[in-house]
Amino acid sequence: MVKSFSDRLKCVSHPKAQELINIILRKKSNLCFSADVTESQKLLELVDKVGPHICLLKTHIDIVSDFTPDLVTELRKLAKKYDFLIFEDRKFADLGNTVQKQFSEGIYKISSWADFINAHVVVGPGIITGLKNVAHNQGLILIAQMSAAGNLCHQAYIKEALMMAEDNRSFVCGFICTESVTSDESFLNFVPGVNFSSSGDGLGQQFVSPSQAVQKGADVIIVGRGIYQSSNPAATAKEYKELAYTAYLNLLESE
Amino acid sequence: MVKSFSDRLKCVSHPKAQELINIILRKKSNLCFSADVTESQKLLELVDKVGPHICLLKTHIDIVSDFTPDLVTELRKLAKKYDFLIFEDRKFADLGNTVQKQFSEGIYKISSWADFINAHVVVGPGIITGLKNVAHNQGLILIAQMSAAGNLCHQAYIKEALMMAEDNRSFVCGFICTESVTSDESFLNFVPGVNFSSSGDGLGQQFVSPSQAVQKGADVIIVGRGIYQSSNPAATAKEYKELAYTAYLNLLESE
Repeated sequence: MVKSFSDRLKCVSHPKAQELINIILRKKSNLCFSADVTESQKLLELVDKVGPHICLLKTHIDIVSDFTPDLVTELRKLAKKYDFLIFEDRKFADLGNTVQKQFSEGIYKISSWADFINAHVVVGPGIITGLKNVAHNQGLILIAQMSAAGNLCHQAYIKEALMMAEDNRSFVCGFICTESVTSDESFLNFVPGVNFSSSGDGLGQQFVSPSQAVQKGADVIIVGRGIYQSSNPAATAKEYKELAYTAYLNLLESE
Repeated sequence: MVKSFSDRLKCVSHPKAQELINIILRKKSNLCFSADVTESQKLLELVDKVGPHICLLKTHIDIVSDFTPDLVTELRKLAKKYDFLIFEDRKFADLGNTVQKQFSEGIYKISSWADFINAHVVVGPGIITGLKNVAHNQGLILIAQMSAAGNLCHQAYIKEALMMAEDNRSFVCGFICTESVTSDESFLNFVPGVNFSSSGDGLGQQFVSPSQAVQKGADVIIVGRGIYQSSNPAATAKEYKELAYTAYLNLLESE
């Protein structure tokens, strides 16, 4: 049985996850935009166009070749203006002692501005402890599955991801996954690789459509190239938003 | 049967792996220093002290809070002065399309200065293709095992890492591992978490001694805190170097 986002609010405990669900309900959008561009100006222009239609902005801050701390300031302003949260897709993947430096220090100081971050579980539970030690209210998303062809997120791997999440409920908000990996409605499912016009990229990416993603359990769909390679990113984002939210409403009705 | 580094030169084909073995033989050092400090000046001072004793410097460039491109220029100068190579321990862990941007663009432009990089295999083979597309003669090290407690690098996972390496011999030089994972002498084993005075860090790290690491199959031992937290990093690095190289010579003799 699929719970509505309103009902999910009752079982989701992390403040950032609650904030995200409230945005989803306010904006009728469960669309996350993955802004994988390498220039600050282009990134800000895109987000300014797409902002009204998204609940979440996903960044790869380390691909921006002209990064300065001002970029983060501007992104936070846009997040406030358009009512969305920011998820830095750093995919932390090192030992606890290292990830806490990668998260809080260096040029990017991710812990000072991101709402959500994510981590690979292959490292084991020490990565969660390390990140938690230096987090400022961030929510952690564990990578339980990937959309890449030939990935090694097999059943036993997913099961261990779930156990790590259950052991760290005060910090872990949900999963990167390609389908629902748990019946526990207190975790949110973020599904990447959503695109309605493409089937792959020759580098292992395997796309699914917005409605397919939602039917498979996506709470939030993540769309990158489908939007930023569009000739009209704002209109395309609106289209993804409507498709995904309609798919969610249909799923509720079909129960 | 353990092959000497001289004999390994005959089966190792990647130019960077050959270069590394030649340095190991010239300097009688199979020590890699993991310079996990967050200030440029401290990093450069440490490397200037430790440089004479290492074959490889491992960096986490994204933890340096006052990073500028000058840091890389200075590190390359030290690499030339003291005859070592540089391994950026980025642990790439995303889809091909993303890692090629993380490797070649952004603030760090890792592909312009690193000799070695590494990647998690959980993503599947697309990560290797993505990195290879933008590599400038770098050698890739695949993470087959980790030194962290509770990591998910189980037997099937390691086997898939090996298959990915075998399928990409022109790019993959070896493995991050805690013990030899293959009898194929054309791959080099880089063993992290080496420390002769500690047993753990409370964040999942599990240390082994230099001789234990070499006996288990390390071609190169990676030492971080054991050296940079020492009151005399140069003397301590020399000690690690001698212990690890002696362990290697003893292993050859015992055959």
